Amino acid sequence: MSEIAVPPSPAADIPWEQQFATRASGMVASEIRELLKILARPDIVSFAGGIPDPALFPSEAFAEAYRSVFADPSRTAAALQYSISEGHRPLRDWIVAHMAGQGVACSADHVLITSGSQQALDFLGKLMLSPGDTVLATTPTYLGALQAFSAYEPHYQRLHPEGGNQTPDHYLAQAARHGGRPKLLYVVPDFANPTGETLSEAARLRLLDLAEETGALVVEDAAYRQLRYEGLPVPSVLALDCGRRGGIERARSVYCGTFSKTLAPGLRMGWIAGPRPLIEKLVLIKQAADLHSGTLDQVVLGDVAQQCLEDRLPLLCGTYRRRRGAMLAALEASAPAGTTWTRPQGGLFVWVTLPEQVDTRALLPRAVEEARVAYVPGGAFFFDGRGGNTLRLSFSLADEATIDRGIRSLMALVGEFVRGHG
Amino acid sequence: MSEIAVPPSPAADIPWEQQFATRASGMVASEIRELLKILARPDIVSFAGGIPDPALFPSEAFAEAYRSVFADPSRTAAALQYSISEGHRPLRDWIVAHMAGQGVACSADHVLITSGSQQALDFLGKLMLSPGDTVLATTPTYLGALQAFSAYEPHYQRLHPEGGNQTPDHYLAQAARHGGRPKLLYVVPDFANPTGETLSEAARLRLLDLAEETGALVVEDAAYRQLRYEGLPVPSVLALDCGRRGGIERARSVYCGTFSKTLAPGLRMGWIAGPRPLIEKLVLIKQAADLHSGTLDQVVLGDVAQQCLEDRLPLLCGTYRRRRGAMLAALEASAPAGTTWTRPQGGLFVWVTLPEQVDTRALLPRAVEEARVAYVPGGAFFFDGRGGNTLRLSFSLADEATIDRGIRSLMALVGEFVRGHG
Repeated sequence: MSEIAVPPSPAADIPWEQQFATRASGMVASEIRELLKILARPDIVSFAGGIPDPALFPSEAFAEAYRSVFADPSRTAAALQYSISEGHRPLRDWIVAHMAGQGVACSADHVLITSGSQQALDFLGKLMLSPGDTVLATTPTYLGALQAFSAYEPHYQRLHPEGGNQTPDHYLAQAARHGGRPKLLYVVPDFANPTGETLSEAARLRLLDLAEETGALVVEDAAYRQLRYEGLPVPSVLALDCGRRGGIERARSVYCGTFSKTLAPGLRMGWIAGPRPLIEKLVLIKQAADLHSGTLDQVVLGDVAQQCLEDRLPLLCGTYRRRRGAMLAALEASAPAGTTWTRPQGGLFVWVTLPEQVDTRALLPRAVEEARVAYVPGGAFFFDGRGGNTLRLSFSLADEATIDRGIRSLMALVGEFVRGHG
Repeated sequence: MSEIAVPPSPAADIPWEQQFATRASGMVASEIRELLKILARPDIVSFAGGIPDPALFPSEAFAEAYRSVFADPSRTAAALQYSISEGHRPLRDWIVAHMAGQGVACSADHVLITSGSQQALDFLGKLMLSPGDTVLATTPTYLGALQAFSAYEPHYQRLHPEGGNQTPDHYLAQAARHGGRPKLLYVVPDFANPTGETLSEAARLRLLDLAEETGALVVEDAAYRQLRYEGLPVPSVLALDCGRRGGIERARSVYCGTFSKTLAPGLRMGWIAGPRPLIEKLVLIKQAADLHSGTLDQVVLGDVAQQCLEDRLPLLCGTYRRRRGAMLAALEASAPAGTTWTRPQGGLFVWVTLPEQVDTRALLPRAVEEARVAYVPGGAFFFDGRGGNTLRLSFSLADEATIDRGIRSLMALVGEFVRGHG
């Protein structure tokens, strides 16, 4: 289709910025997404995007699931039609069984299907946050969560889940100073984006204490939970919560799951599991926001999850485990003195802290041009301006040899930079 | 999969209502959606849902489009992977050509893909509305638009597009009394939900005047625009706007389109076309809300739209034209004195006004039990409590003979009711 010529028109004379809602002033392009567009060059080894390897998608199972829907006229008619906002029942039933496997007893009424876990975060912000309310989050944390919540104009406070001596009263007093209350306590407890770190069970229990004492809701972003490469699983926050409070109806936390990292992100399918009073409101939010997630995609994802999700985890985890190993070994072999990094038990990311004098934003153009390697400067993940000497590396996309070569080139450049400034 | 037993737990002791954002108090279940669940009984003739006839979905074309993606490994990998927030480029290119066919010259930068036009309405509310700002809308109007906007806590004022003597100063003064400004001017100009009525070109031009004088953005909900059964098309508001202001960059309106009524609603795919300063902000909203719409569904919809959308319109319009004819003829033949109804030139709905003493909410249970017919009580579409003696009928789902029988039964019941109260 040929591009339509747009007639020249004078520059817009409408001062839209003055017309927008106040929340719009905080909406700025994600540094990471802009970076990813620039960095999608075939000659660059990209450790930047946190995206799954498409070679690991169960393409055959998806093809067969779509084919099977279209082979049956009555399934086809239903799959192309409007559906209920709560989500396709067989898919919710699969999630109910999956949650049970994690120690969370629930029913389909405790589950809302969302368009990826990103939409879950948006909806939770919409449900809980009035302007001036407070979100407690670690720094660094998942930037997309901050983008989702920021539309509702909260204030942020730093959470110290593994230590620190902030009392609940401290958080309450700080929140009151900004005219609101602590409403959300956001964590990625397993193999966090961006650090790869996992919260201990003790830290999870302290989070639940803090939620209880401040009245906040814990939002457990479980995006990477199923990608564990070593060590024993830590119970999910929601499972601990149900255990302490006697069931999901009395829980103070919600669990945001996704199929993006285990099956495929392109279908945009995730879920929220939590107590009914919250799910009922979230269903209304879903209805007003987009009526429901795609019917056909929900049907297909229900089939594919049922058929092959559990069976594919060993392949996924084995592949990513080897790539993580290659990255950690290359760092060990080549990182200059004064560099530290995390050793994640799962997920997609290693978090690197370089010597203080290195500015990873300033270093990036040289990394791309000279080392032919891309990463995400860590400052993007902080809401308090710190992290200038940090960077996030993803090991999900490249094979071991390429990872080894890329890390050595990058660390050689860092070494040069450090010596040049030494 | 068997249902998991949920252990008994004490009733929630958490006062969630006090924890929710202030906007949550306005979130109540849609009367219509609740009704539709109850009324989905095979023994009832449903004139209630405004949903397309699944027999008219191009199922073969969809099956072939999915098959073709999965036949090519590189297309498969891309279709299952993350994508850009703006939307799949070939789909946006199809929309650009479609808009050009309506007299709107634009480029792919003026188009954002949304998850149905419902999401477009949510995003426009999010972009424009601070609490206390004003939305101008007709009453009755599409309930889903009010649900989407209400999350941003606006005030509503009644719009009189075909007449009335409200001056721009009147609207500005009213809006100021509620602490905000007129921000959105929402209309369904073609074959509106729920009335089936179409705005004249003169009315559309007056809306643009009003937008200019109040500073508001016109939101043109074009959901039914392609379903015209008689008469000549009226230029879209956005086309008129571009014509007057010299191009889309200076437009004061955005156009919300959807594939739900022409191809299939189950894929949840629609778009917003408008000036770049708005689209750029809406892309950021999309990114924070759900990253992007489903990649595979966008690829498939691009293929199917390109291949068969235009060719299928005669089948769609021919079928619905006959059903509309059957409904209007049956009303003519059987409606009791004092009943009036609209004669839509397209879309899915006829709007009926019964004698004043009839309460269509109260009548509904009898309509279902005695006449075996369902409809939507019209009061649901008013934000100002009026419309108690109105109802919305959809002619999209039943064949002509069933429509004739259903309308005659319903009108016989209305006649009885009127005489009983006479």
